[in-house]
Amino acid sequence: MGLTLTPLAGIPLIQPGDDLAKIILSGLDATQIHLEDGDILVLAQKIVSKAEGRLVNLAGVTASPRAIELARNTEKDPRLVEVILSESNEVLRTRPGTIIVEHRLGFVCASAGVDHSNVSLALDPEIKGSAEEYFREEWVLLLPVDPDASASLIREGLEVACGKRLGVLIIDSHGRAWRLGTVGVAIGISGLPGLVDLRGTPDLAGYVLKITLVAAADELAAAASLVMGQAAEGTPIVHVRGFPYPLREGNLNELLRPRQEDMFR
Amino acid sequence: MGLTLTPLAGIPLIQPGDDLAKIILSGLDATQIHLEDGDILVLAQKIVSKAEGRLVNLAGVTASPRAIELARNTEKDPRLVEVILSESNEVLRTRPGTIIVEHRLGFVCASAGVDHSNVSLALDPEIKGSAEEYFREEWVLLLPVDPDASASLIREGLEVACGKRLGVLIIDSHGRAWRLGTVGVAIGISGLPGLVDLRGTPDLAGYVLKITLVAAADELAAAASLVMGQAAEGTPIVHVRGFPYPLREGNLNELLRPRQEDMFR
Repeated sequence: MGLTLTPLAGIPLIQPGDDLAKIILSGLDATQIHLEDGDILVLAQKIVSKAEGRLVNLAGVTASPRAIELARNTEKDPRLVEVILSESNEVLRTRPGTIIVEHRLGFVCASAGVDHSNVSLALDPEIKGSAEEYFREEWVLLLPVDPDASASLIREGLEVACGKRLGVLIIDSHGRAWRLGTVGVAIGISGLPGLVDLRGTPDLAGYVLKITLVAAADELAAAASLVMGQAAEGTPIVHVRGFPYPLREGNLNELLRPRQEDMFR
Repeated sequence: MGLTLTPLAGIPLIQPGDDLAKIILSGLDATQIHLEDGDILVLAQKIVSKAEGRLVNLAGVTASPRAIELARNTEKDPRLVEVILSESNEVLRTRPGTIIVEHRLGFVCASAGVDHSNVSLALDPEIKGSAEEYFREEWVLLLPVDPDASASLIREGLEVACGKRLGVLIIDSHGRAWRLGTVGVAIGISGLPGLVDLRGTPDLAGYVLKITLVAAADELAAAASLVMGQAAEGTPIVHVRGFPYPLREGNLNELLRPRQEDMFR
């Protein structure tokens, strides 16, 4: 009983085109973990995006008038704002340094998940010729096009290789409306529940619970994010054993509050 | 390396006046865990509140006109609404079935953390005479008066007993503005950081990270909440080994976004 989260050892810097299932299998070997039914692999969004080549060179981006105005208000690079807008359904709030949007995938987050801070892989010589060119060209990294599909593809690769029933979760770090600091949240789900509905489950005294829709995938995302810890340590893949709910097909949309139920937009 | 979360076995139903440090030590014995420096114990709010006797009998509550009106709009018991208001600084949003408040402790949550669903301990014969009386009297449970202080008291009891440097975290389940389902969050902290500031830490490519205020205590709260799982299984205390950040004194206030920075109130 209990939950064990283990960062995989020996994960290389990910390059566009990399086969993440293969890299995970090597990492499991290096960490001496043998997959069992019910295990879950959690991946940082950054490496999935990199493997999928979701890099944009700001040098090739032309900012629209709307992006230029928003950039002025938020003190950001207009070309970066253009990319953020292209990844967003709606801008919810802005202030200097901050743009809160509804991402095209439906969740609310800062900067549509686009940031300069996570482009270390652009140092790959396939992408640019020199570190000097890299810094001049200013690559940024977008979220995967369809993180649920990314998770499913990785899961399929793992399940075919090991013959076990697994889950794969892709996570990012989001801020919250009323609390400081970021927490890991699910952005792509395959083979595990997003939400778990405990409504109707009696508690110890025979009472029926009231607050019983548990965001199990987000709780797991936060746990794995804690283990990934400082990006400097380079542990973007975490193996999970002991997830307490039955695995089933799941997806990101389960976790998104429908707009008509949103009281804070 | 890695994070291990283990629910403690053999935890009895908690009664007002119980010594939680002693109960934790018994549970650790029953689970065959020997405390080490850096270990953290995570407790569900419910048992801390029960041990502290934070029970209110709605039969003895008189609803104010304000509570009666709010109860009408939200389809709740006016006496329950009175208790919710008494635990709140401000009502932020209401709709049928839902009252979102700023709790007197400063965080935003539904119903000020007060609920019928978590009063199983009121079945204690010290509190009432019979199950029939229990259901007639309708006890509800409030959050601890000062959860940081509650956590510190428990930690002191544990540290004196074992001679190790520990952390204690008290958690509740909160909803989120834009995502469905609840996640565990910190409401009381002793001996571990609420926030971890990684600003200035270089990433693997020598870049300086940008999003680097991590709500480490909330990530741990979510992880422990996942392990506590269904309340029906009765595992309100979780032992944690492998928390990746250095322990230090910490508190709830670190995690609360100052009102003047709140863009969604």
